[in-house]
Amino acid sequence: MRRELPSLTLGILGGGQLAQMLALAALPLGVRVVVLEPDPQAPARLCAEHLHAPYTDAAGLARLAECSAVTLEFENVPTQALEALAGRVPVRPGAALLERTKHRAREKEALRAAGVETAPFVVIESGDDLHGALASVGGRGILKTSELGYDGKGQARVNTDAELSAAWAALNGAACVLEGQVPFVREVSLSVARTAAGQVAFGPLIENIHRDGILRTSLFPAPGAELLEPQACELARVCAESWELEGLMTLEFFVLQGGSLVVNEVAPRVHNSGHLTQDGGGLSQFEAQVRAVLGLPLTNWRPLHPTAMVNLVGAASVEGQPLHPDWDAIDALSGTHLHLYHKTWRAGRKLGHVNLVAPDTGTLAERLAELERLIP
Amino acid sequence: MRRELPSLTLGILGGGQLAQMLALAALPLGVRVVVLEPDPQAPARLCAEHLHAPYTDAAGLARLAECSAVTLEFENVPTQALEALAGRVPVRPGAALLERTKHRAREKEALRAAGVETAPFVVIESGDDLHGALASVGGRGILKTSELGYDGKGQARVNTDAELSAAWAALNGAACVLEGQVPFVREVSLSVARTAAGQVAFGPLIENIHRDGILRTSLFPAPGAELLEPQACELARVCAESWELEGLMTLEFFVLQGGSLVVNEVAPRVHNSGHLTQDGGGLSQFEAQVRAVLGLPLTNWRPLHPTAMVNLVGAASVEGQPLHPDWDAIDALSGTHLHLYHKTWRAGRKLGHVNLVAPDTGTLAERLAELERLIP
Repeated sequence: MRRELPSLTLGILGGGQLAQMLALAALPLGVRVVVLEPDPQAPARLCAEHLHAPYTDAAGLARLAECSAVTLEFENVPTQALEALAGRVPVRPGAALLERTKHRAREKEALRAAGVETAPFVVIESGDDLHGALASVGGRGILKTSELGYDGKGQARVNTDAELSAAWAALNGAACVLEGQVPFVREVSLSVARTAAGQVAFGPLIENIHRDGILRTSLFPAPGAELLEPQACELARVCAESWELEGLMTLEFFVLQGGSLVVNEVAPRVHNSGHLTQDGGGLSQFEAQVRAVLGLPLTNWRPLHPTAMVNLVGAASVEGQPLHPDWDAIDALSGTHLHLYHKTWRAGRKLGHVNLVAPDTGTLAERLAELERLIP
Repeated sequence: MRRELPSLTLGILGGGQLAQMLALAALPLGVRVVVLEPDPQAPARLCAEHLHAPYTDAAGLARLAECSAVTLEFENVPTQALEALAGRVPVRPGAALLERTKHRAREKEALRAAGVETAPFVVIESGDDLHGALASVGGRGILKTSELGYDGKGQARVNTDAELSAAWAALNGAACVLEGQVPFVREVSLSVARTAAGQVAFGPLIENIHRDGILRTSLFPAPGAELLEPQACELARVCAESWELEGLMTLEFFVLQGGSLVVNEVAPRVHNSGHLTQDGGGLSQFEAQVRAVLGLPLTNWRPLHPTAMVNLVGAASVEGQPLHPDWDAIDALSGTHLHLYHKTWRAGRKLGHVNLVAPDTGTLAERLAELERLIP
């Protein structure tokens, strides 16, 4: 069928860097973007219609309800906003999937129900749940809040019952999950997109290296992808289909010694690790999410050549003064692509990322080592 | 030197699709964009601060004067606007270069003065200039208005003195250039960027196929580039240096039978033929122009793999009804990247383009043949 020039509008709950990059990917598709975001300095305001209001603002939600579809850039969308949009505009992913992925205990139970392996875990909701919890996950664990944790915040490693009790008290007795420490050798991630009509497509398998709980570097192709990627795709497909995903979600995996995969967590959106798809010559994860949410044709997306990403996180000297990357040296390095989010500097804040491309994996590794030296 | 996070602002005279794509390339560099553009529906308004006013508006020009530098997306910038900005903000390319490239006769004289070969030409400014003109350019020529011609408009092929007189009368006796018809076998283009500090960098050599005077398809690598590209770079360097280019300009060349190059015309900006650099994994021409104008580090830019572009031009049925491309089939074809400009349909109007990538030139040629069938 020959359609007219597309005239679609995408609403986004949230206006941070993910919304900004979604908008930059949507515009060339002929898609306009509207973001609902209370922060007056939100990155997405520079390339989208910015509804400067709380996520629960009635007028803002009414404007979003006029869009072709609504998506999001963070999982903790207020239930009230989702309820206000229900029945007026497709929200993708929808409320049921968000209820799972915004709550670590529900997410793990839903993964288990779908038959997908996770680390051993115990839900901690009262002091009684602490008894025997550590032993049941293997004697060493990580206590994580069920809600609102990200980038290593709201987490504590515990090796004894006393440490577990202290850590839970330090988290003010919040609802938590105690996860067994999985003896993983590497971390990888993979995104899956699914349209409302049930078409499924996958992103590439990406290797991730963290530092201080924040993603530092991502790498494509992930070493060992030929063995790991089929497993990851199958697990992603099972989740996407049993949870009836509409839109895009990203699974983070632990790779165990023998090469099997355990799901760590799930994000109902594009993911920091997938930023490297922006400069690989293939479709980007951002375009994939836009396409999946709007029901546009979708295929697997992957870079055409080796690609890496290094996050630019606000770093400080011992005196607390900003330490800036050596921009000119980054620019001078072959294959770099700068992506800045137009955010003000703050220690620990993600301010941008650098994508790096190379004709082969050896050259990529050399350039990546150089690039990492330039970023404090 | 370690700079802080960049906080640069780029002003653009014009808000069409070139400004839109310049803005999309500027934002990830941490650069904000302001466009001065009278059209309320201008494509760039979706991703830039839009000063909705004539190019000569004092308040609009005052806002542009606050930017780090000002560039443009079309050559016919009113002299009054350039005069108003002079001394207040760097305008790149500057007035002297624009005076040449906006006027075909001056451009050809400036090329000749720089020692660069063009087609034989005669300047036609009065009826007297018609006498003997055709013979002096070889007996067959193309009459072109010196100003405001583009995409084949304001041009006529002439083979006799009578045709020449009639064509000039049909152009209302406007200032013209009569060019000799060069026996070219192909057309290619190449962009060159130069910073105010004198750093020069080149884009890739691109092959161009026109239809009805409008660019239809561009191709990288251009066949025979190993012989043609060094020549094209040398000619571009000579022009850029002798004209003291600041910013980016594009040279269109005729390739003669023996493989030598003749300059056809020069555009003081990114060029339709360079759109394919957006999806090749390397720097895009838009980022190159932004970098050159703002004095950011610059290297040669070129795709990492074979790439093509096909323009989406408003086509009509015999009844004048819009004929739309088969969007779904375009999307379904491997390696396509859609770029729409958010313009309403009009017959003959450039509405967007499709970039196409492939792992090798054979696959690219196959995909390109399929893609061209899908676009009326």
